[in-house]
Amino acid sequence: MGKIIDINFAINKYKYQKPFHITNSISTDTDNVEVCVITDEGFKGYGEVAPSFRVNGETADQILALSKKSKDMIVGEDVKNYRKIFSITSKLISSPGLKAAIEFAVIDVLCNEIGIGVWEFLGGVKNEIETDKTVSIGTTAERVKEAVDIYKKGFKTIKIKVGEDINRDIDDIIEIYKKTKGVNYIIDANMGYTPKEAVRFAKTLYLKGIDVAVFEQPVINYDIDGLKYVRFNSPYPVCADESAKTRYDVMKLIKNEAVDYVNIKLMKSGLSDAISIIELCNSANIKLMIGCMSESSIGVNQSVQLACGYGCFVFCDLDSHLMLSEKTYRGNFKQIKNKMFV
Amino acid sequence: MGKIIDINFAINKYKYQKPFHITNSISTDTDNVEVCVITDEGFKGYGEVAPSFRVNGETADQILALSKKSKDMIVGEDVKNYRKIFSITSKLISSPGLKAAIEFAVIDVLCNEIGIGVWEFLGGVKNEIETDKTVSIGTTAERVKEAVDIYKKGFKTIKIKVGEDINRDIDDIIEIYKKTKGVNYIIDANMGYTPKEAVRFAKTLYLKGIDVAVFEQPVINYDIDGLKYVRFNSPYPVCADESAKTRYDVMKLIKNEAVDYVNIKLMKSGLSDAISIIELCNSANIKLMIGCMSESSIGVNQSVQLACGYGCFVFCDLDSHLMLSEKTYRGNFKQIKNKMFV
Repeated sequence: MGKIIDINFAINKYKYQKPFHITNSISTDTDNVEVCVITDEGFKGYGEVAPSFRVNGETADQILALSKKSKDMIVGEDVKNYRKIFSITSKLISSPGLKAAIEFAVIDVLCNEIGIGVWEFLGGVKNEIETDKTVSIGTTAERVKEAVDIYKKGFKTIKIKVGEDINRDIDDIIEIYKKTKGVNYIIDANMGYTPKEAVRFAKTLYLKGIDVAVFEQPVINYDIDGLKYVRFNSPYPVCADESAKTRYDVMKLIKNEAVDYVNIKLMKSGLSDAISIIELCNSANIKLMIGCMSESSIGVNQSVQLACGYGCFVFCDLDSHLMLSEKTYRGNFKQIKNKMFV
Repeated sequence: MGKIIDINFAINKYKYQKPFHITNSISTDTDNVEVCVITDEGFKGYGEVAPSFRVNGETADQILALSKKSKDMIVGEDVKNYRKIFSITSKLISSPGLKAAIEFAVIDVLCNEIGIGVWEFLGGVKNEIETDKTVSIGTTAERVKEAVDIYKKGFKTIKIKVGEDINRDIDDIIEIYKKTKGVNYIIDANMGYTPKEAVRFAKTLYLKGIDVAVFEQPVINYDIDGLKYVRFNSPYPVCADESAKTRYDVMKLIKNEAVDYVNIKLMKSGLSDAISIIELCNSANIKLMIGCMSESSIGVNQSVQLACGYGCFVFCDLDSHLMLSEKTYRGNFKQIKNKMFV
């Protein structure tokens, strides 16, 4: 049948193994919201919201406060009419993470009913991806140690958080580069630079012979002209993250020729807009990466299934579950070092 | 399992019930190519190519000449990895109709294996759509009679072919309007006008108080600036058909603000680009209609499944099977007058 009879919500608390410091934000713990969609034949599908107050204005309490409303809108619908459900979840404007978790849980339960993996339902391109791992903001010594640890563990891509102190950022990346040659670097400023600082940052590193695979969100999210300025004046591919939440955001970025890359995160877009954004970028010669907020393994699973299904992401930045202390591993994928297998 | 072990191709010949006359083209019959994808457990999926030499340069023989090549590329793939198969079918550049039929047949067999309808696999938004019916170019008396017949049969939308003689087109539409008030009109010039003629045509009808729901492909396909000119100077929504084949075409139309509408046809785009185009237009506030070439019921079925799955088409122009003499009805939908039910 596939008729939704209930949706359950539960808060799960996780601690970061160590504080995670990015521009203007230090995370020590996260309250995630688990969503379970149940159909009339007893099938279940799972999703998770990792609320980002910084990016989306979401909190666990704010999401729970929407639980009755979202249940009222969706209970009684059939998961086989999933795009009809997507048109309902698109109304959850104040909570894209909740939209994501419900949409994923709907597809998850549908796939349980019909007996194929979500990654196959979405396209089945790859059964394996690999993730980067992230160096947070810290002292020079901390940053270098963290990068070298990641390097030694065999990760091929290191993501480095910058944006609070441009001169130290440049110096520290040069130090990291000396000890981790051969990997890809994703540099993420989380909106920390002005457009001119961002260009200076990129040109300085370039003249040092350092290649940067992706230069992520150098400037504040609403400054599309600023992103374009950086793109047209930087040797590195410029990527939108905080500027690219909905498909309408991405359409505007494309029309403005503002970026080379988009970082898709389910928590910003939900599954439905994430799929739209994939199609938009694939039609506009814009490359894709996929990222996460503070999802546990059950939440990262959502992105792993999407990434394997479409097989379209040049980089996967799906390491949040590796940063959390999690008692029980719940991903529907197998993690072996930097690789994830569905 | 789902592994493709064979693809069969067969030519089916159909006669039009009466000659179908559009700008610079009169059709009396069509040789369509039926495609059957077979998997290792004996499941079958069906697609059909209605070759359009005028739009795509395709003929039945040209398609059969690609049968071995396409089989070699696809046999051995698993239909559950369907986006991997889409990346292979995207190489069928000279034959978008063949791309469409294979892609649809792959999804059809996958859905047979997992036991859901193709329309459900694609989103399950609607289980019912309605089609317009088309008045071809003819004498004034023929056009009026054909329109009145369609009107009396209960169709809510009449599509009128124009483009060979602007003054008679205007006069004939005024005559049709007098006898069919209350229906929607889609006017399709099939590239027959210059930009200035198209604007004169639209303004003249507008001043007569006639509302046109969609003004389709007024100018030659490659003239995107011309489409934009008509759009910015016409009271009616301007729609691209021959100008909108691939997702890249549609991205260009969007960037150029050239149209209000896109007419998706599987024979121009295949299923994969059709899905991309839906996402593009939904992200750019561009409305959608879906059309056909000379598909029989098994071919129109492809578009009916897509239209019901996504539920995003303001108008469905899926009447080709109603114009052909077909011995055995083979659509996986039920046709009752102007309505189609999956």
